[in-house]
Amino acid sequence: MSDPHFNRIALIGIGLIGSSLAHVIRQRKLADEIIVSTRSAHTLRRAEELGLGDRYYLDAGEAVAGADLVIICVPVGASEAVAKWIAPALTPGAILTDVGSTKGSVIRQIAPHVPEGVHFIAGHPIAGTEESGPDAGFADLFDDRWCILTPTPDSDQEALARLSAFWQACGSMVDTMDPEHHDLVLAIVSHLPHIIAYNIVGTADDLETVTKSEVIKYSASGFRDFTRLAASDPTMWRDVCLHNKDAILEMLARFSEDLSALQRAVRWGDGEALFNLFTRTRSIRRSIVEAGQDTDIPNFGRNAPTQKPDTPAS
Amino acid sequence: MSDPHFNRIALIGIGLIGSSLAHVIRQRKLADEIIVSTRSAHTLRRAEELGLGDRYYLDAGEAVAGADLVIICVPVGASEAVAKWIAPALTPGAILTDVGSTKGSVIRQIAPHVPEGVHFIAGHPIAGTEESGPDAGFADLFDDRWCILTPTPDSDQEALARLSAFWQACGSMVDTMDPEHHDLVLAIVSHLPHIIAYNIVGTADDLETVTKSEVIKYSASGFRDFTRLAASDPTMWRDVCLHNKDAILEMLARFSEDLSALQRAVRWGDGEALFNLFTRTRSIRRSIVEAGQDTDIPNFGRNAPTQKPDTPAS
Repeated sequence: MSDPHFNRIALIGIGLIGSSLAHVIRQRKLADEIIVSTRSAHTLRRAEELGLGDRYYLDAGEAVAGADLVIICVPVGASEAVAKWIAPALTPGAILTDVGSTKGSVIRQIAPHVPEGVHFIAGHPIAGTEESGPDAGFADLFDDRWCILTPTPDSDQEALARLSAFWQACGSMVDTMDPEHHDLVLAIVSHLPHIIAYNIVGTADDLETVTKSEVIKYSASGFRDFTRLAASDPTMWRDVCLHNKDAILEMLARFSEDLSALQRAVRWGDGEALFNLFTRTRSIRRSIVEAGQDTDIPNFGRNAPTQKPDTPAS
Repeated sequence: MSDPHFNRIALIGIGLIGSSLAHVIRQRKLADEIIVSTRSAHTLRRAEELGLGDRYYLDAGEAVAGADLVIICVPVGASEAVAKWIAPALTPGAILTDVGSTKGSVIRQIAPHVPEGVHFIAGHPIAGTEESGPDAGFADLFDDRWCILTPTPDSDQEALARLSAFWQACGSMVDTMDPEHHDLVLAIVSHLPHIIAYNIVGTADDLETVTKSEVIKYSASGFRDFTRLAASDPTMWRDVCLHNKDAILEMLARFSEDLSALQRAVRWGDGEALFNLFTRTRSIRRSIVEAGQDTDIPNFGRNAPTQKPDTPAS
């Protein structure tokens, strides 16, 4: 196995993923030096207070100088701006990667700016929470989660092996995949679920016949599950929608078609069609739990609520 | 406050809700005697093995004889059959209630069969997990959750007070509501989320371009959240769809309209519209956590997975 250790790792962007990387790199001694850069002075100061890095830069160009691993951890829409900014300062032989949720668009934004001798391999750790910002990170985020790397035919194999070893040392299991296929897979497992969650929460918010207070009080009957995804970072998700448009529109079209069929079954009282759909979806849940990708404790093992609602029982 | 204690409580149906009631009634001494009835000999035997009741009957009519509280805990589509069965055996002065997820239809099915002198008040504890059957119940299920009672104008006020006291002793906070309004509220907070979850899991299951194995492996990126609801009891949810049709169709129509607008924003790259929606949905999550209706721990406080996937990292 390749060496997962680097001399100097530069993290460009220090949100949930960037700060989690800072924690795990530190904890598992994956670099001699961690460089943190973000364009927000406020966020950079917070990262410094949290002790996430060894040095801190507002200027991404300064941050990457001398780094043998540079990880871009910004919303995917900012990829090209970052690439242009850091390109002149990248060290020959360095590995450049990212953590963005879309890969085709990110490669199109970054690859043209990568100087000769720098090894760019795009990546995507399939991990996260609904939290964001430098305070949200934690070292275990990547444990037992997949990380997808999307090398292109001309990618350097040694760089790929080192980057894989790095992610494995972070706790991940590594897969490689064609960038276009990645975008299709993520459209169904991640982008569509987020869009649907945002949409249903919006629909509930707009009702005139049911009050917001009622939606909140009775949310334990199902609705609350969707609000977690719908509390995710708006900038990140706006960028995902704008940068994986084709795959998302394809999945939305299929979803809507299926929903129309289901709606028709409700309207015409087709109990058999409803029962058949509701039965076959059960097995997927079982497979996910068996694959170690979710807890098998009912209700996600949610803790009992600790705070009492201030609405009195009537 | 009224007396939450009954001499003999008969539970007709012993699934997740029925068995949870058995546990909490026993634990908090809410009855001298618990009678369990279900039409499945297999399930009745299992309930007996679990020690859920004091006496066990396949015949619901025998089960309710002498009971001062009868709780119907069956899928809503079976309400009328149960009502016809037990009606002749109900004891004058007894309280009859249910736990179904729809209220208008349940009242229409049960009320015509209730004999003079028996107090029927429909109810719905807003609590549950994705598990079902007599093994799934536990005593704390109703703690800090709402229970909605839907009395009609001619309901007996003393019976209402006793039933409220009973649910409060089970750990619930009690609200009363018009049955039609209940059905509208639940259509948005519970029925639509379940239908959407079933639908997206079905869409993912049908894809030719993304394999089922990929959907499972990468489900931690959002999809897995939906699979929990989509693993709920198929019979129960078929009945909900068939028995709250109008409210569900209304909510489905609104949801689809909103989704079309969102889809249009994706197609035309309207980042501002996307950002605005994704921002306002965040506050609802916050309100739900503040109301004690969900955990504030990221990822629902899911435990780290304990089982390793058998797919090797590549």
